[in-house]
Amino acid sequence: MESDLFETDHEDYRRTVREFVKRQVVPRMEQWDADRLIDLETWRAAGRQGVLGLPVPEEHGGAGERDYRYRCVVMQEIARVGAAALQSGFTTNDDIALSYLLRHADREQRGRWLPGFATGETIGAIAMSEPGAGSDLRGIGTTAVRDGDDWILDGSKTFITSGILADLVIVFARTGREHGSREFSLFVVEDGTPGFSRGRKLDKVGLHAQDTAELFFTGARVPGANLLGQVGEGLPALMRSLPLERLGIALAAQFSAEAVLEWTVEYVRQRRAFGRRIGDFQAPAFRLAELSTAVEVSRAYLDRCVRAHNAGTLTATDAAKAKLWATDLQHDVIDTGVQLHGGYGYMLEYPVARAFVDARIQRIYGGTNEIMKEIIQRELIGRP
Amino acid sequence: MESDLFETDHEDYRRTVREFVKRQVVPRMEQWDADRLIDLETWRAAGRQGVLGLPVPEEHGGAGERDYRYRCVVMQEIARVGAAALQSGFTTNDDIALSYLLRHADREQRGRWLPGFATGETIGAIAMSEPGAGSDLRGIGTTAVRDGDDWILDGSKTFITSGILADLVIVFARTGREHGSREFSLFVVEDGTPGFSRGRKLDKVGLHAQDTAELFFTGARVPGANLLGQVGEGLPALMRSLPLERLGIALAAQFSAEAVLEWTVEYVRQRRAFGRRIGDFQAPAFRLAELSTAVEVSRAYLDRCVRAHNAGTLTATDAAKAKLWATDLQHDVIDTGVQLHGGYGYMLEYPVARAFVDARIQRIYGGTNEIMKEIIQRELIGRP
Amino acid sequence: MESDLFETDHEDYRRTVREFVKRQVVPRMEQWDADRLIDLETWRAAGRQGVLGLPVPEEHGGAGERDYRYRCVVMQEIARVGAAALQSGFTTNDDIALSYLLRHADREQRGRWLPGFATGETIGAIAMSEPGAGSDLRGIGTTAVRDGDDWILDGSKTFITSGILADLVIVFARTGREHGSREFSLFVVEDGTPGFSRGRKLDKVGLHAQDTAELFFTGARVPGANLLGQVGEGLPALMRSLPLERLGIALAAQFSAEAVLEWTVEYVRQRRAFGRRIGDFQAPAFRLAELSTAVEVSRAYLDRCVRAHNAGTLTATDAAKAKLWATDLQHDVIDTGVQLHGGYGYMLEYPVARAFVDARIQRIYGGTNEIMKEIIQRELIGRP
Amino acid sequence: MESDLFETDHEDYRRTVREFVKRQVVPRMEQWDADRLIDLETWRAAGRQGVLGLPVPEEHGGAGERDYRYRCVVMQEIARVGAAALQSGFTTNDDIALSYLLRHADREQRGRWLPGFATGETIGAIAMSEPGAGSDLRGIGTTAVRDGDDWILDGSKTFITSGILADLVIVFARTGREHGSREFSLFVVEDGTPGFSRGRKLDKVGLHAQDTAELFFTGARVPGANLLGQVGEGLPALMRSLPLERLGIALAAQFSAEAVLEWTVEYVRQRRAFGRRIGDFQAPAFRLAELSTAVEVSRAYLDRCVRAHNAGTLTATDAAKAKLWATDLQHDVIDTGVQLHGGYGYMLEYPVARAFVDARIQRIYGGTNEIMKEIIQRELIGRP
Repeated sequence: MESDLFETDHEDYRRTVREFVKRQVVPRMEQWDADRLIDLETWRAAGRQGVLGLPVPEEHGGAGERDYRYRCVVMQEIARVGAAALQSGFTTNDDIALSYLLRHADREQRGRWLPGFATGETIGAIAMSEPGAGSDLRGIGTTAVRDGDDWILDGSKTFITSGILADLVIVFARTGREHGSREFSLFVVEDGTPGFSRGRKLDKVGLHAQDTAELFFTGARVPGANLLGQVGEGLPALMRSLPLERLGIALAAQFSAEAVLEWTVEYVRQRRAFGRRIGDFQAPAFRLAELSTAVEVSRAYLDRCVRAHNAGTLTATDAAKAKLWATDLQHDVIDTGVQLHGGYGYMLEYPVARAFVDARIQRIYGGTNEIMKEIIQRELIGRP
Repeated sequence: MESDLFETDHEDYRRTVREFVKRQVVPRMEQWDADRLIDLETWRAAGRQGVLGLPVPEEHGGAGERDYRYRCVVMQEIARVGAAALQSGFTTNDDIALSYLLRHADREQRGRWLPGFATGETIGAIAMSEPGAGSDLRGIGTTAVRDGDDWILDGSKTFITSGILADLVIVFARTGREHGSREFSLFVVEDGTPGFSRGRKLDKVGLHAQDTAELFFTGARVPGANLLGQVGEGLPALMRSLPLERLGIALAAQFSAEAVLEWTVEYVRQRRAFGRRIGDFQAPAFRLAELSTAVEVSRAYLDRCVRAHNAGTLTATDAAKAKLWATDLQHDVIDTGVQLHGGYGYMLEYPVARAFVDARIQRIYGGTNEIMKEIIQRELIGRP
Repeated sequence: MESDLFETDHEDYRRTVREFVKRQVVPRMEQWDADRLIDLETWRAAGRQGVLGLPVPEEHGGAGERDYRYRCVVMQEIARVGAAALQSGFTTNDDIALSYLLRHADREQRGRWLPGFATGETIGAIAMSEPGAGSDLRGIGTTAVRDGDDWILDGSKTFITSGILADLVIVFARTGREHGSREFSLFVVEDGTPGFSRGRKLDKVGLHAQDTAELFFTGARVPGANLLGQVGEGLPALMRSLPLERLGIALAAQFSAEAVLEWTVEYVRQRRAFGRRIGDFQAPAFRLAELSTAVEVSRAYLDRCVRAHNAGTLTATDAAKAKLWATDLQHDVIDTGVQLHGGYGYMLEYPVARAFVDARIQRIYGGTNEIMKEIIQRELIGRP
Repeated sequence: MESDLFETDHEDYRRTVREFVKRQVVPRMEQWDADRLIDLETWRAAGRQGVLGLPVPEEHGGAGERDYRYRCVVMQEIARVGAAALQSGFTTNDDIALSYLLRHADREQRGRWLPGFATGETIGAIAMSEPGAGSDLRGIGTTAVRDGDDWILDGSKTFITSGILADLVIVFARTGREHGSREFSLFVVEDGTPGFSRGRKLDKVGLHAQDTAELFFTGARVPGANLLGQVGEGLPALMRSLPLERLGIALAAQFSAEAVLEWTVEYVRQRRAFGRRIGDFQAPAFRLAELSTAVEVSRAYLDRCVRAHNAGTLTATDAAKAKLWATDLQHDVIDTGVQLHGGYGYMLEYPVARAFVDARIQRIYGGTNEIMKEIIQRELIGRP
């Protein structure tokens, strides 16, 4: 069944986004992969054309548009061309970094940082994971210690999306020792901060154009004015942010699954073997029927989640379900897509092959799918 | 995420239905199983209390209520107590037999038959499958031949839900020989028709209270006034009816899955082993988290289908997807439910065990799930 | 690939067993189901014809045959006709009860009990599970307290295979309070023991001919001479017995899967729909190809296990793997078998339908498959 | 359960191979990935040290060792370090190219080509797939036409393992037009043949060190003495070769699965989160228990296949089952391995990440797993 999520305004906006993708993204994807980096011009163009930073308030140069369905349009159009590295950079920027600022930045900070998000001139990142602590955030070892008006940060972060390009990194650091939920705080670390350096770009299975990197803080001096929110409010802030982050991953997965299914259906309609179209064989046709069903069923749930997010009622458990479900589905669709493409499914020039390597991280980042199950079962079964 | 399908009026109606289920269904289920039959008094009570026959127009004694969400309430309440045999009888009656009459009966026929559906005094069935033809309806061998004003029916039907109790059976029979879609017609065969007899109740895996039976037509003489619709219109009529039939099966599956999940969660919250609640072990807890997610995701799709049915836009493919998806899910939930109940999951006094034997037919009747995939892939891939 | 497990002698023995099954089992299965009991004459005949009790030493009237491949032949022939209730009774008798006696009975006990196992006149059972303790044996509440030369047993047991027919029940009871592994002992409780009574036959999902029952011990007085093994040796004895018990379940599952696959292949070769044999459609054919592969792969492992058991090297972990694997496979094969039989797969007159209801307990008894995973992972990962 | 495939001689040989892998393979893998090529020195060393070319008869400088278990040792040791690109090159060389020569080369050809396979100085490849014909070999378009004593080859091949390095390519070409099985022949095309050129190295999902390439034949002149076997015998020769080719892929998959399982078990034993080892959480531990079971079960079947191959009784269907089964299993093990490694599972410096990208082709090449199912079902169900 068709989704009924979008209205006329969203479809109008889609034309802008589709044009951006066609002119700015598609012709450059191969180069980005070779460079292992997305060019800054694309970020700027996205800002200028309203593809990035839509929720920035008008007073700071944005559109002040909080209807998340516009972001969905962007995600869907990017997924249609398989630009997963760009997808992940934009999501990190808009759904995570900008979201934190919109929620926690004070008046002065908003004036300093939001305009850059409206124009695409500021690229944001979030630094949580560490070599010794992934999903287990309480195991974080990076510390921030007060020194006069400043804070001194020490530690290292890893798996940081946009780690090389980011102008502004929101760092999750320990500011207290007592156990409990109030021992962490958030800091905005800007490019050029003394003691802040970037490590190598990580060599990943996929998302080659994504500049995922390690970040190092060695006595990094961060001004007090860059504390985001209150001291000790890091964990609650993060908890409030996770549902949207996970919904974003879920939607990227959903739209990717829809795109890969479409490519694959197209392929089996054209490609012939043993005197017939591949799609005329019952086994692949049935498999695609199952996946097409799964994709539509999943979409109904995600549409419901998007509406709940717009209404402010999306819970952490809802978002965990969306992330678990859609990323598992994306995996299944892509795996079948590759298989039905035969040898071509293993050749990176085919988008389905790129999707295969790009998507594998989806079940891991933003909290592994095992963490999602932990969250879900906790609400379902409860503790004695 | 919670379903938003129902409104206040539906919740009001739910109280009536729940009361009916509590008083009329729960205390009798064991007896029905022993008798291998649901007592007629229950059918009458359901009619009297508006649990059956809601869409019968007011002029014929019904409520004229076409909002399918009321049927959903009935299905959900019946599923909550695991009365699957009753579910299947009521669905056959209201979603199939009554539906055919509402759509195809002429003025005179409506006057004759609809009042009984409003009061629960007429029980309806549909006779399509034959020993040699299940999902492949064009292989049907039962014939109807004109004899003066009457029709003479010959052949046998099998797997007929409510086959023993039914007062009125809509029979799908061949009235022509030429190939094509216009060789079949529908006849209403009433109890007492000469040459119409009922075979043994079939000994099934589950649904023990369901009087599934074989029907025999040996020169059965059916008056011309009992032809339903036009001659040769049998197959198109059946095609129009299938989406609702399948949606009904899908919803019964969905509500059953929701109920079994709830029973199982409750069980693992209470039952202890190795010093802990079963639900405190991660593997079962994660499995239930997955299923709880699946159930909510599926519900979002089914809600969308119910709304589409109400709006008259539910397609055959949509319904095939719903049936395929929800019955597969029901199976998964029940299988896990049985497993987590341990030895008790194999004892019929536990509802989860009854659900296990009752539900297995869901992936088979109403068109096997393989037929659903055939329908779905045909639209998806198309023919060259 | 064909199994190479059996040699000429086993194939010779197979003729005897097949004859027994043909004359004694097949014609009575329907009656057993109706009676919810296997007749004693069948047990006697099995004993007389060497189908039961083969390992009883010659001095006690048996064949003294310890090559487990002869038991495999019996299991395979019983599985071929789908007599799962008989299978489970015989396995309990020979692989469990008799096994305990052969291993732990003293000279006097052997003289008293073994001859009856050779002739089929004594039917054995084992009583471990209790209403409050299934897989978690340390939670057992039945107690045995010394009273002079006797022991007084109090408590209840449930899910006891052959609970009604058994002449001799090996009861697992608590004889100590201190924690640890030495607090349990085994007692042979014979029919007629004062204070020992049998409850109702349990109403199960399947295995209808199996007289699974509850047993009650109310101050049951058991002579000291019926203590099996040493006081406090119950748990170690049970631990030694579990691998064979589980191997037996695994083999019953394997042979059942082989039989059901064969029935189903035969069915799809004969049954036609849409102008072709069902087996000519690619989707069911591919599914059967997968299952046929799985069945052969599994058989290679089970053959290896049987040889290891004969050599005395089968470990608890090996047996846990066999039980987990083969019973999961049996489920998959049967589920597909039912589905491909269409409506007939739900009718108990078809063996595949009976297999469906009979087999569901296989993943639960003998230690649930979750317990199997616990055992396997403990060896795999180890404790810190 | 432990495999009992290998005997003392194989374990002695393993020491040689392990030394080769340690000295010659492990230190170079990173460089090979960067070069997208395995250096020739490694091929020579493998030849010199008896790691390659073992079945070459002594008269041609080899060991004349036809016991396939030695090849298994090589595959297992290569899999242990995750050198999948090397694995695939060696398998193509020894199990495919060399195998064809041993079976079909005449006396003169044996003298010309076999010595190079014994020393590692000749690298062999096989060229079947074409852009328009993968699994469907009868769709092959490359032609060979007689011209005096020579043959003129025209066409292109793709997905050719060792396509860049190969000194000797066995080309499958059409030599007749009549339909049937006798229209294809095999030609040995040597490096330097006029009209034979190599295309670009293909950019693949994984196996980066593998020089998979396209090959072009533009009026390529091949001497009559390079016809392998008889004219028209190409398809039967290929059919005879496929079982070993597929067994080789299956074994590479099995050994890879064993290795990845071991790495992952080791990882979850070390890595901690939430105050415990990951392996102490039940959900991952159970998943690994399932996979460890699956891996051992699969191994039992593959050992049986290896013995059958040695005995000359391995059928095409047996090999299809092995390939289908083991490559599906490899996928499952690796997917879980990646997941349990968390973010590190996506970083190519971890062998499990490399395994993920390398292994995806296993279910596709050597005949897709769908083709395997086709082969299996054909024997299982038969044609009417």
